[in-house]
Amino acid sequence: MTEEQLPPTAQLDRFSRTLVRGRPVAVELLWIVISTLFVKSILPGSLHRKVLLRLFGAKIGPGVIIKPCVNIKFPWRLTVGAHAWIGENAWIDNLDEVFIGANACISQSAYLCTGNHDWSAQNFDLLTGAITVEDGGWVAARAVIGPGVTVGRNAIVSIGAVATEDVPSGRILAASSVLLDKPRILRPGASNGPSK
Amino acid sequence: MTEEQLPPTAQLDRFSRTLVRGRPVAVELLWIVISTLFVKSILPGSLHRKVLLRLFGAKIGPGVIIKPCVNIKFPWRLTVGAHAWIGENAWIDNLDEVFIGANACISQSAYLCTGNHDWSAQNFDLLTGAITVEDGGWVAARAVIGPGVTVGRNAIVSIGAVATEDVPSGRILAASSVLLDKPRILRPGASNGPSK
Amino acid sequence: MTEEQLPPTAQLDRFSRTLVRGRPVAVELLWIVISTLFVKSILPGSLHRKVLLRLFGAKIGPGVIIKPCVNIKFPWRLTVGAHAWIGENAWIDNLDEVFIGANACISQSAYLCTGNHDWSAQNFDLLTGAITVEDGGWVAARAVIGPGVTVGRNAIVSIGAVATEDVPSGRILAASSVLLDKPRILRPGASNGPSK
Repeated sequence: MTEEQLPPTAQLDRFSRTLVRGRPVAVELLWIVISTLFVKSILPGSLHRKVLLRLFGAKIGPGVIIKPCVNIKFPWRLTVGAHAWIGENAWIDNLDEVFIGANACISQSAYLCTGNHDWSAQNFDLLTGAITVEDGGWVAARAVIGPGVTVGRNAIVSIGAVATEDVPSGRILAASSVLLDKPRILRPGASNGPSK
Repeated sequence: MTEEQLPPTAQLDRFSRTLVRGRPVAVELLWIVISTLFVKSILPGSLHRKVLLRLFGAKIGPGVIIKPCVNIKFPWRLTVGAHAWIGENAWIDNLDEVFIGANACISQSAYLCTGNHDWSAQNFDLLTGAITVEDGGWVAARAVIGPGVTVGRNAIVSIGAVATEDVPSGRILAASSVLLDKPRILRPGASNGPSK
Repeated sequence: MTEEQLPPTAQLDRFSRTLVRGRPVAVELLWIVISTLFVKSILPGSLHRKVLLRLFGAKIGPGVIIKPCVNIKFPWRLTVGAHAWIGENAWIDNLDEVFIGANACISQSAYLCTGNHDWSAQNFDLLTGAITVEDGGWVAARAVIGPGVTVGRNAIVSIGAVATEDVPSGRILAASSVLLDKPRILRPGASNGPSK
């Protein structure tokens, strides 16, 4: 196939920045600095994190616990219900609204991603979708929640699982790895090439 | 359904902190500072990491290699056998004991998670389970090991795989992603909405 | 089984460091410092990242966007085509060459891993494999690309997916988690043990 015959690709230079960021650039830059020093930092304690997040527009209920090293994109698009927890190193990438219900738990290293791209359009436009974790829901460690997804009341997204569709209330989404049939056989001595 | 008819949720305000942390708070805080400066840092070299981990109670055999940016929760609950490796950015979240055997390899960005919650109890109690990677086992890059799991002798948890049950000796657990049937079709021009 | 009857394990002390690093140690150390301060840092902006990467040998086309907190192992083994994007917190672990095509997108927290080990050889030799993301390809957030893999023209590795084999042009590889049959039943009151 010559270059002429190849199908066209996305053209990222035609991407238009349509994201409404919700705050002036100066506020966003200030948040980046404040967040790096006090929210994403290793400093123990929830209180100063909640004070700062509320100062930048987050709605946070009573009794919420927010652990160290948490990364929150836009605090002004975050709602957290009473007695919810956000674990160490969790990343709430909230270009769009994120609603975390009462008594919900977002565990360590979980990633909530509200951004997507229109991958069937050549200009690869940004699409965003709000994420909701309903009351009592649990997003476990290293789990990933995709844009537009709702994790239902009391539902669980287990360790390392990836939710790209809604998880119904009271249900459990689990990662699925597979135990291969072939065993690992060790030859004595050194390598003589890839062992696929 | 009215609010009254909804099933009750977990009540995280009733959670009781039963974790025995194993060291006084002052020691834990000191470890956080020391670890941030010298163990989780980008400084190259294994030797200072091993000296510090041993000082805080870790049992580390001869010839062990520990790379930069490694995150270890409680060094006093870590045992590493001779000639084992711990890769860059690995996270050993050892609320409970973690045993890494001789000649075992924990690769970069792997995550060993010993904490769980009793998700069928309303108070969401903390449950922990020790993790063992037996001699010659390999937890590859970005893999996840859940609480209570044993990775058997010479077993492999491949790149990006999630082990929530024991992996038998000499066996290989692999991540399973799926190639969708529908292709990506690119329209010329701009987005006209989500392309699900 | 007595210790004598157990199969032999890998012997990591026999590992030989055969990686040709491509630059003197002093250059690599300088890169680690520069990268930490300016490329892996939270500083907004692409321009200074591109200038520094090119200074250390990367080939980067026009119009490329590189977001904060990006981790690149060896800039001298990186080629990025025109108008490609590299997202926040992406990790390009390029012991071997990484080629990112024009208009390709590597999203936030994606991990490109070029290193492997010969796990059937006792000395666990390092094996590396170049990674290619062809023009218009998209490696979405938190996705993982293994050593030697080619992501074809316009192909997509979706959020959280793990590509250990080539993804054909125009095709979509998706993470596969599974919705369990058993629901989450909440007992009133406290824990009385694990709820597996």
